[in-house]
Amino acid sequence: MANDQPPRPSRRGFLKAGGAAVAAGASLGAGLAPQAALAKAPAHLADPQLAVEPFYGLHQAGIVTPQQSHTYVAALDLTTDKRDEVIALLRTWTEAAARLTQGGTAAALPTGDAGDSKPAPDSGDVLGLGPNGLTITFGFGPGLFTKDGKDRYGLAARRPAALVDLPRFNGDQLIPEKTGGDIYIQACANDQQVAFHAVRQLTRLAYGTAAMRWGQSGFLSGPRGQTPRNLMGFKDGTNNPSTAKPELMKEFVWAGATADAPWMEGGTYTVVRRIRITIEHWDNMELGFQEQVFGRHKYSGAPIGRQNEFDAVDLKEEDKDGNPVIPENSHVRLSNQASNDGAQILRRSYSYNDGTNFYIERWPPWRQETEYDAGLIFVAHQSDPRKGFIPINDRLAKFDMMNQFTTHVGSAIFAVPPGAKPGSYIGAGLFET
Amino acid sequence: MANDQPPRPSRRGFLKAGGAAVAAGASLGAGLAPQAALAKAPAHLADPQLAVEPFYGLHQAGIVTPQQSHTYVAALDLTTDKRDEVIALLRTWTEAAARLTQGGTAAALPTGDAGDSKPAPDSGDVLGLGPNGLTITFGFGPGLFTKDGKDRYGLAARRPAALVDLPRFNGDQLIPEKTGGDIYIQACANDQQVAFHAVRQLTRLAYGTAAMRWGQSGFLSGPRGQTPRNLMGFKDGTNNPSTAKPELMKEFVWAGATADAPWMEGGTYTVVRRIRITIEHWDNMELGFQEQVFGRHKYSGAPIGRQNEFDAVDLKEEDKDGNPVIPENSHVRLSNQASNDGAQILRRSYSYNDGTNFYIERWPPWRQETEYDAGLIFVAHQSDPRKGFIPINDRLAKFDMMNQFTTHVGSAIFAVPPGAKPGSYIGAGLFET
Repeated sequence: MANDQPPRPSRRGFLKAGGAAVAAGASLGAGLAPQAALAKAPAHLADPQLAVEPFYGLHQAGIVTPQQSHTYVAALDLTTDKRDEVIALLRTWTEAAARLTQGGTAAALPTGDAGDSKPAPDSGDVLGLGPNGLTITFGFGPGLFTKDGKDRYGLAARRPAALVDLPRFNGDQLIPEKTGGDIYIQACANDQQVAFHAVRQLTRLAYGTAAMRWGQSGFLSGPRGQTPRNLMGFKDGTNNPSTAKPELMKEFVWAGATADAPWMEGGTYTVVRRIRITIEHWDNMELGFQEQVFGRHKYSGAPIGRQNEFDAVDLKEEDKDGNPVIPENSHVRLSNQASNDGAQILRRSYSYNDGTNFYIERWPPWRQETEYDAGLIFVAHQSDPRKGFIPINDRLAKFDMMNQFTTHVGSAIFAVPPGAKPGSYIGAGLFET
Repeated sequence: MANDQPPRPSRRGFLKAGGAAVAAGASLGAGLAPQAALAKAPAHLADPQLAVEPFYGLHQAGIVTPQQSHTYVAALDLTTDKRDEVIALLRTWTEAAARLTQGGTAAALPTGDAGDSKPAPDSGDVLGLGPNGLTITFGFGPGLFTKDGKDRYGLAARRPAALVDLPRFNGDQLIPEKTGGDIYIQACANDQQVAFHAVRQLTRLAYGTAAMRWGQSGFLSGPRGQTPRNLMGFKDGTNNPSTAKPELMKEFVWAGATADAPWMEGGTYTVVRRIRITIEHWDNMELGFQEQVFGRHKYSGAPIGRQNEFDAVDLKEEDKDGNPVIPENSHVRLSNQASNDGAQILRRSYSYNDGTNFYIERWPPWRQETEYDAGLIFVAHQSDPRKGFIPINDRLAKFDMMNQFTTHVGSAIFAVPPGAKPGSYIGAGLFET
């Protein structure tokens, strides 16, 4: 980094104050401000590294929060058979997450010789960095409720019907060690190391109770004020329901108080898919064909035949020969609300880039070669996946022209409970009501 | 990204101008300003996304350039047997790199129907993003000179003696598909997608002439104006020779005009090592032990027993019992100039984070489990690796306490030629003098 810029307020302050500043910082996040209101507030300060997002609230942060530039998403498997240990873990995590999101360390750092003789409670690799708008979001996978037919924690009867096991979709090529998980942790921040740091500390706090199943780093490079482009070069997220409209969030994103899972009120259901993109192949496609695949123009983001990104998608429009202007098998048509009985989901995806691997090519001329291991960490939040991701992806998996260039290699679904009140913990409603 | 921030000057302008603006932009980088002078200039504008680094110059950029926040490093293997095709590739790359670093696309984008019927010359995924201080650095591996005993391009006699094949170091566990390569491309930028975009376009331009061998994304999260911390939580780079001192750069970084390779004058030799860190293991070590391993205090970065990061490292200092204050097998002692006959190298490393993989643990209790695939992309520039990386790493590989926590899994060495003059190309001195 440059050496000619002034220092700035930092996590270092918390070190010097021996943790006292953390308590003060945490109060920034106290209270039960609805996330909908947060979404309307200025999302990033002038300096995104100094941005702070509240941790406590009616909803968990990181769902309707304006998307930060980086993420680290992870799923852990519970290794304990004791309900109390799961509760203790959620309490520990809640407190640590409140500290971390407000710019603190996972726990107060010991000082002097006393600290030398034991592992530090924080890896220290983001000391000096700002809070960077960090949000930490927790979710519960099917395995928390029943696993291998066993009701490990007395929660089987409380599993929401909406937390379905995802069906196998056409073309799925799921890798077990990138799929599933009992607990979801999603850390998003305006800095890559800050996002990873959060999951790293939380995972360490789970030692002996839960173990990492998969973790993945992601990023999003968007021009400010514009819809970001994914690695295919197209704008991604244009047609998302607006987080500024609480009525849309209520209908499509937030779970209601269903009879089977009243504890999920104010939560959401999150689907994560690791989608590898055959970038080399895609880059050699004609521009016009790429646009037919998406159903949008590449540079403007406008629906085909239109000028502006936010022009309405008219699925009924035909050209002079009577053919649809937006192709039948285009991504935009198949995923559109009008093609899916009005269903909408809130996508909050990130690109991933894990360098290269040596692969056997899956398209002619079937060469063996080094290829990019890159693509999309698709993340979608919804009030009920049975009306959201599942029917939409079922249609896409069968018909989307884009499937020539994408492979779903990881998959998971989680019930993301509502936010916590200060003094309580994430998931308290599940265990204690 | 937030939707409440003003738009900014962007790559989009180049699109509208049909490439004309690129030519104007490229002239920003014209002339032969020595990199030493660049290093003294303000490294980043107020907005790092708008920063522009010159491409043309006496030296290539990306060596003494203040370190940007992200990198994508790659090595390609030449697949042609024609010298002219290698030269043509270097010409194409030079022109594309000049455009990309100045905020342009790899080539002018076609407009209208004419463009629809062929692949676009640029993937378009960073349209709207700024230049982000992008630098692109090219290097030549041993395989350009001879491969499998064959002098493919009539260059065998011009191979510099300093471009040695690296010896096998103690503990090396090199993976062939992460090791070696005929050509090196190092893209560094203040944005992850911009860095990857550059390598992606250049690799595509090499289609049929060179193919990707390995590629790797890296990042560096440093508090502004401070030495960044690596994933072990320690400051990394404190003892680097100062890029602000041309005499140090001349001695330790820039290659001179040796009799065997006069064309390398103003170039450098670059070693890249992929070093996996066993983060889970490291995090469970006592803080005091971690500091013994490094020979520095973790939070301040000061040498053990000192207060401030930049306090001199005194290898002779002893405690009251006559034991060395800086431990015998500490990283700082073994890598110090005084332990290596005065040798210094310019480290310009990045962290990498490729999520998790399912591994068999290499330390007790030998469990099988999901572990982080993360660590350091070590990059070091030097005037002669026989006096730089090789003796230093030989000592480290044998004695460094840190080896308990690190594994070198990838390795490569390259001769990085001097910069190009406008109108010429990177490597012209090798092929044409």
